[in-house]
Amino acid sequence: MTIITSVETADIRFPTSTSLDGSDAMNPDPDYSAAYVVVHTDAGDGLEGHAFAFTIGRGNDVQVAAIELLADHLVGRDAEMLLDDMGSTWKLLAHDSQLRWLGPEKGVMHMAIGAVVNALWDLKAKRAGQPLWRLLARMTPEQLADLVDYRYLSDALTRDEAVRILRDAEPGRAERERLLLERGYPAYTTSPGWLGYSDEKLERLCREAVADGFGQIKLKVGGDLADDVRRMRIARRTVGEGFPIAIDANQRWDVAEAIEWVGALREYDIAWVEEPTSPDDVLAHAAIAREIAPIPVATGEHAHNRVMVKQFLQAQALQVLQIDAARVGGVNENVANLLLAAKFGIRVCPHAGGVGLCEAVQHLSMFDFVAVSGTTEGRMIEFVDHLHEHFVTPTVIEGGSYTAPTAPGAGTQMHAASVEEYRWTAERATA
Amino acid sequence: MTIITSVETADIRFPTSTSLDGSDAMNPDPDYSAAYVVVHTDAGDGLEGHAFAFTIGRGNDVQVAAIELLADHLVGRDAEMLLDDMGSTWKLLAHDSQLRWLGPEKGVMHMAIGAVVNALWDLKAKRAGQPLWRLLARMTPEQLADLVDYRYLSDALTRDEAVRILRDAEPGRAERERLLLERGYPAYTTSPGWLGYSDEKLERLCREAVADGFGQIKLKVGGDLADDVRRMRIARRTVGEGFPIAIDANQRWDVAEAIEWVGALREYDIAWVEEPTSPDDVLAHAAIAREIAPIPVATGEHAHNRVMVKQFLQAQALQVLQIDAARVGGVNENVANLLLAAKFGIRVCPHAGGVGLCEAVQHLSMFDFVAVSGTTEGRMIEFVDHLHEHFVTPTVIEGGSYTAPTAPGAGTQMHAASVEEYRWTAERATA
Repeated sequence: MTIITSVETADIRFPTSTSLDGSDAMNPDPDYSAAYVVVHTDAGDGLEGHAFAFTIGRGNDVQVAAIELLADHLVGRDAEMLLDDMGSTWKLLAHDSQLRWLGPEKGVMHMAIGAVVNALWDLKAKRAGQPLWRLLARMTPEQLADLVDYRYLSDALTRDEAVRILRDAEPGRAERERLLLERGYPAYTTSPGWLGYSDEKLERLCREAVADGFGQIKLKVGGDLADDVRRMRIARRTVGEGFPIAIDANQRWDVAEAIEWVGALREYDIAWVEEPTSPDDVLAHAAIAREIAPIPVATGEHAHNRVMVKQFLQAQALQVLQIDAARVGGVNENVANLLLAAKFGIRVCPHAGGVGLCEAVQHLSMFDFVAVSGTTEGRMIEFVDHLHEHFVTPTVIEGGSYTAPTAPGAGTQMHAASVEEYRWTAERATA
Repeated sequence: MTIITSVETADIRFPTSTSLDGSDAMNPDPDYSAAYVVVHTDAGDGLEGHAFAFTIGRGNDVQVAAIELLADHLVGRDAEMLLDDMGSTWKLLAHDSQLRWLGPEKGVMHMAIGAVVNALWDLKAKRAGQPLWRLLARMTPEQLADLVDYRYLSDALTRDEAVRILRDAEPGRAERERLLLERGYPAYTTSPGWLGYSDEKLERLCREAVADGFGQIKLKVGGDLADDVRRMRIARRTVGEGFPIAIDANQRWDVAEAIEWVGALREYDIAWVEEPTSPDDVLAHAAIAREIAPIPVATGEHAHNRVMVKQFLQAQALQVLQIDAARVGGVNENVANLLLAAKFGIRVCPHAGGVGLCEAVQHLSMFDFVAVSGTTEGRMIEFVDHLHEHFVTPTVIEGGSYTAPTAPGAGTQMHAASVEEYRWTAERATA
């Protein structure tokens, strides 16, 4: 028996607001932060489970406090029992009736569950000596189907359907694993497009993005229409006709405004329109999607759980699903989201960036390619070149693709030195 | 100038789990709790703004910590400026871009905003020497319309429409204020129906509810169908034919299960089906509503913001809107919810109970009667006879109606002695 001895947390904040990296129409001055968690056991094998919730600064301490609430469910428990049945472990955390009231299944408390679930997956993958994507991709369809909480899903996806989807993808697994290791997984980059950047920086970064082999770039929009037209014109001129440029409004618009704004930019050829309005607003996204078609609507990074993803799919409110590794209830809930996307035939292009989101979410897309959808067609993972140096196994981008990680774990472990250097305290904040 | 000098908090927990008061299909053992906040000023008039977020136990400390994050926006600021323009004050709190990431507009962080907003309204009403309902009901249509954040609402409700709704209700205000003071506002009671109660207790409480003049009772369901049938039969037999009995599943079902379960109970005549499934699931509620019609679907106590309420109305996913005083962003967002309900012609029957929810939400229904919908037809406020003794101005029920409060404030102030007695500390918890 291996006992979980402690659940350690850290409040880590990077002062990114000083450089306007990450600035968009809704988030003018983010300080990229991680509410970090480490699960320790008495195994004596040196293996720990590391993960985090991602925030953008203030409130990261509350996010950490929420993670600490979950320690009672883990400390003193048999790690093997918890890790062997991650479906039940998810329910243990997500169905705590008193904590559930704080969501339910949304916001600070649900992100805390996601962080702890992901830390357990990191530990499970390390113990198995496998990168998370491969650990998942080698589980049986039944084992994978059992990771999902079907509560509130059964009108769109049952366990039987999940098993069927996974069985259909089983024959090609080995070949796709080989292909993945050989070619990696396609990426696109948002680095050129932050609102706070000058036109010169935008142009330079657009040029570099194409030269680096990325398959798409993305521009933040929604601050000022004249600025957006100018920046879009510069970007289009720089990358040339036919190269995909997506735009991202970060929830800035109402329905009519979104339709009008996209209308003013569509002559520059838009690959997708991301987060046009409130992430809660399934019906508004559906209305926008109908009006701006055939331009696809992309969203999902703030879809707070599988119930929201289900509805977006049912209502044809998105054409590109952007899962996020740290917003929902961790790997388990993202397995549900991937299965839902497969069921509805919708492509998944994960949200990444922030702190460690690239490192984490690549495993989900790679698993999806090998064992769920079986394809990378029209799919790519967002890439933002920030803060990777703080991770023990940082993403490796080659020729515009994510290289498949081979190190054991979920990719979510930071260097101890980084944790110490960027550990936030009230004293440091006022210094 | 009056300066806000401090924002004080308290973690208050009542050990209600020991009596199974408040037990339902999803919340077997709640400890009703308040993340309590007091806003102090230097006015020297002895007036403070009191309010709270309601939780059911574990995590109340995290809820308190989230409230504390907002103190920076208030302490040192001019209270008069903030209170004179509560629309802008709401945005100051809700649009903090870094804190917004923790929702956005949902869960722990949004409930914290609601608590602080409500504390400011309590202070504003006390300074005006008015109960909150009358303070609101005497504001002009334009002043009221300016309380609402129309972001994400404009496809269903614009400021112009809000003003029109409020102007239409203006002529009868004085007469309805008189009627309200004379007759109170209708109530129904949930006290008989908790899952943890014996059949004998159920029967006795049903009899008392009718004798006390309540217009409806409500039973918790969703644990076990045979039990529900038996309890429903007892309740129906006790209250007699024609007396309204609502049922409340507290989010327990999926779509097909809800339809089936309601089918098995409908012979007992159901007044409404409350929270049949996930509070996030607009489309599921709409599907259930279509299938169980003409039995109405009631929900909203966990609808986390105006965007959710808007969608439930647009999709005809509810026929009874159950606003909650402490789930959304406080009075301002509930004014938006009341205006949305008026726009869509939907009746509002607030959720109450918990800690102080009756005390708080009655002001919103009374304001709605005087200045928004202008009617109490088919409307009533939930009443649960718990914990009122801890409030300085507890609800007064007479003949099955809420008596209109006349004391200045929002009704959300607890006795100092109660705050001290039930203040939770880690030491006390393990004692």
